[in-house]
Amino acid sequence: MNTLNTQVAIIGAGPSGLLLGQLLAKQGIDNIIVERVSGEYVLGRIRAGILEQGFVDLVREAGVNERMDKEGHVHEGFDISYYGQVFNINIKELTEGKTVMCYGQTEITRDLMEAREAAALTTYYESSDTAIHDAKSDAPYVTFEHGGESYRLNCDVVVGCDGFHGVSRQTIPAEQRTEHERVYPFGWLGLLSDTPPVSDELIYCKTKRGFALASMRSETRSRYYLQVPLDHKVEEWTDERFWEELKKRLPEEMAARLVTGPSIEKSIAPLRSFVCEPMQWGNLFLVGDAAHIVPPTGAKGLNLAASDVATLYKLLCKAYGEGDMSVLQRYSEIALRRVWHGERFSWWMSNMLHDFDEQEVGGMQKATFDQFMTSELDFFLNHQAGKQVIATQYVGMPYENID
Amino acid sequence: MNTLNTQVAIIGAGPSGLLLGQLLAKQGIDNIIVERVSGEYVLGRIRAGILEQGFVDLVREAGVNERMDKEGHVHEGFDISYYGQVFNINIKELTEGKTVMCYGQTEITRDLMEAREAAALTTYYESSDTAIHDAKSDAPYVTFEHGGESYRLNCDVVVGCDGFHGVSRQTIPAEQRTEHERVYPFGWLGLLSDTPPVSDELIYCKTKRGFALASMRSETRSRYYLQVPLDHKVEEWTDERFWEELKKRLPEEMAARLVTGPSIEKSIAPLRSFVCEPMQWGNLFLVGDAAHIVPPTGAKGLNLAASDVATLYKLLCKAYGEGDMSVLQRYSEIALRRVWHGERFSWWMSNMLHDFDEQEVGGMQKATFDQFMTSELDFFLNHQAGKQVIATQYVGMPYENID
Repeated sequence: MNTLNTQVAIIGAGPSGLLLGQLLAKQGIDNIIVERVSGEYVLGRIRAGILEQGFVDLVREAGVNERMDKEGHVHEGFDISYYGQVFNINIKELTEGKTVMCYGQTEITRDLMEAREAAALTTYYESSDTAIHDAKSDAPYVTFEHGGESYRLNCDVVVGCDGFHGVSRQTIPAEQRTEHERVYPFGWLGLLSDTPPVSDELIYCKTKRGFALASMRSETRSRYYLQVPLDHKVEEWTDERFWEELKKRLPEEMAARLVTGPSIEKSIAPLRSFVCEPMQWGNLFLVGDAAHIVPPTGAKGLNLAASDVATLYKLLCKAYGEGDMSVLQRYSEIALRRVWHGERFSWWMSNMLHDFDEQEVGGMQKATFDQFMTSELDFFLNHQAGKQVIATQYVGMPYENID
Repeated sequence: MNTLNTQVAIIGAGPSGLLLGQLLAKQGIDNIIVERVSGEYVLGRIRAGILEQGFVDLVREAGVNERMDKEGHVHEGFDISYYGQVFNINIKELTEGKTVMCYGQTEITRDLMEAREAAALTTYYESSDTAIHDAKSDAPYVTFEHGGESYRLNCDVVVGCDGFHGVSRQTIPAEQRTEHERVYPFGWLGLLSDTPPVSDELIYCKTKRGFALASMRSETRSRYYLQVPLDHKVEEWTDERFWEELKKRLPEEMAARLVTGPSIEKSIAPLRSFVCEPMQWGNLFLVGDAAHIVPPTGAKGLNLAASDVATLYKLLCKAYGEGDMSVLQRYSEIALRRVWHGERFSWWMSNMLHDFDEQEVGGMQKATFDQFMTSELDFFLNHQAGKQVIATQYVGMPYENID
C-alpha cells in the first residue's frame, strides 16, 4: 500500500475536478485528482458548449483562459423558433450587457489538463476500485488501485466530481440523502460534423415534429440535436435521415441554407432532472453531475457544476485561510439555491420546447399540457418582460457572495 | 305553446348574460334571457370581486357604471406573502398605469339586473326544462317552461351563459367538443364578514400550512379564503377556527391587526381548470363558465367571461351591421386565445401558491415539485421582469381587435 497525503482529494478529472484543482493550486492548496478512465477518454466526451460569464471568470481566475479567449465566441443572444416563427432573445440587451461564451467542454477540459500537467500537479488516471473512507471524520481518506498498486490518499476533505454514476454520491448512506428525479420520455440525438454552423448563434426549435437545437463548437464545426423517442437506436439514424429530419424542424430560411456533411460523432442521450440533497456529508462534498443533472435545454449542466466549484473553492480558501474548516458546512445550502434555479429553468425550457408523446404530462392530459405550453411560449416571447425572464436565467444567476 | 321571437336568445342571467344583453340592447339588437333560478338566487352567489380594466370599460360601454364608479375601489397592486416575507406587486407601476377595480360580482349583477329592468328588457326567471334546438341551422330556437306554460323562443343565435353545469355546453354532441380538465386536490373555504379588511389590497399568502387569501368587497366587508382539504365540511369550520387558522397564514403584522367578526357566509369551493373547445357549435355560442373554469387564484374567472362577452358582442354588432352572420364563426378562435392565457396564469399561480399534499404533483414527487415552485416564486418576486410578468397577466391580456 502506497500512502499519499494532500489537503483536498478530488475524485474525477472532468472539467469540474480539473478547474477546482487548478484554482486551489493557485492559492497554494494542495490537491490530488483520482480519475477512473484515461485523459483521452475524458476528452472524447462531447458535451456542452455554452459557458456563463461566471464560468468564464472562474477560468480566467484559474489562469487557463488563453485559448478560450482566442478561440471562443461571445454569444449575445439566441433564437427560439416557435412553429417556424423566429424570436430573437438578445441576452446582451435584455440583461444590461451580459453575454455567454461558446467554447466546447472538450476544449476547456483539454486546456485544464495541459495546465495541470504544466504545473506538475498530481493526477492518477485509470484508477480503479476507488473508495472514500471516514468521510464523517476529520481524517477522511481515499483508497484506489493504480498501475497494479494499491494507494491510500489521506486528506482533509474529499470532493466528488465523478459524475452521476460515480462512487462519491453512493458513499453517502441512502437514508441520509434525498434524491429528486424526473426522467423525460425522450432523448436527444446529437450529431457533430465539420460543417459551418447554420447560424452564428443557437436556435432552439419547437415544432410539431419535436424539438431541435442548432448549435456549434466553432466556425467550422456544428453540433445539432433532434428530440427522438427513447427507444430509438443510433444505428437507425443514418446521417441522411438526420439531416432530412433536421431540415423539417429548422425555420424554412435556415433549412434552405443548412450545410450538411458526414458525422464525426452521433449519439443519443436521455434527459433527466436530478438533485441529491444535501450535497455534502461530513468532509465529502459533491460537485456537478455527482449531485445534480439537468436536461440540456438551456445549457445549464456544466454551468451549474462551475458554480458548485466557485462556492466550494471560496469556502475552502476561507477555511484554510482562517484555519476554521467549519465554514465548509455552508456549502450545500449555498450551492443548492443556485442549483434549484438552474434545475427549474431547465425543466421549464424542456417542458415548453419538446413534444411529449405521452397520454398524460405534468399531471394532466397531453392536449391540456400542450395548450398551456403553447400559451406560455406565446406570452413569454411576445412580451419584453417575458424575454427578460428567459435571458436573465439563460445568462445564469449571479454567484452568491460567501462572506 | 307560447311563441317568442328575438335576435339573440341568452341562456343564463348571471353577470355575463346580463352584460351581453345590456350591450346588445344599446346597439338595438333584441335579446331575451332565460334563467333557471330567481333573480334573488343569482344575487346570493358570492363570487369574484376583482375586475380587469377591460371589464370595467365594458360595463361603462353598457352604461351601468354609476354605482361601480362610486363604490368600487381601484387597486394599484397586491401583495404576495411568501413564507411570511411580503412582496408588493405594484401593478400600476409595472404595467405603465394599468389597475384593477375591486367591486363585488354580486354588486355588478345587481346593477345589471336593475338596468335591464329599467330598460324593460325581457328576462324569464325561474324557467325549467330549457332546451336548445337546431343550433346547427339558421333558425335555432329555445324551449322552456315558465309559470306553468310552455314557450318556444325563435332566434338567430343562442348564447350559453349558463355556467359549468348548464344545458348549453351539453347541447354540443360530446364527440364534437374536446374537454380539458384538471381538478385540484384541495378547495377554498371562503368566509364573508362585516369587518374592515386587514389590508386595502389583496394579499396572497403561501405558507407551510397552505394558501390563504385576504380580500374584500368594500371598506367594511371582508372576504377571506383558506386552502382546505377536499374532504373538509363547512360544519367543521367554526368562525373561531377559521380566524385562528387565518392568523397563522397571514404575515405576522397583518395577523396582529386582523379584525374578526361573525361570518355572513361560509362555503367550500373546489378548484378546477376546465376548457371546452370549440366554444361554438353552429349558432350556439358558449360564454364564461359554460366553456371554461379557472381556479380562483389570480381572479380570472369573471374576467375571462367578460372578454368572451366583449368578443361576441363585437362580432354580433358586426354581423348585424353588415348583414353577414358568417363573421360569428371567428368567435371561438378569438375567445380561446385569451382564455388559454387566463387558464395558464391561473394554473401557474395556483401551483406556486398552494400546498399540494399529494405524493405526486405535476408528474413528479411532491418534494421536487415544491422545490421548483419555491424557486419559481423566489425568482419571480426578486426580479423586476418577473414581477412585470405577473402584473401584466394580473391586469389581463388586452382584448383582441376583431376588425
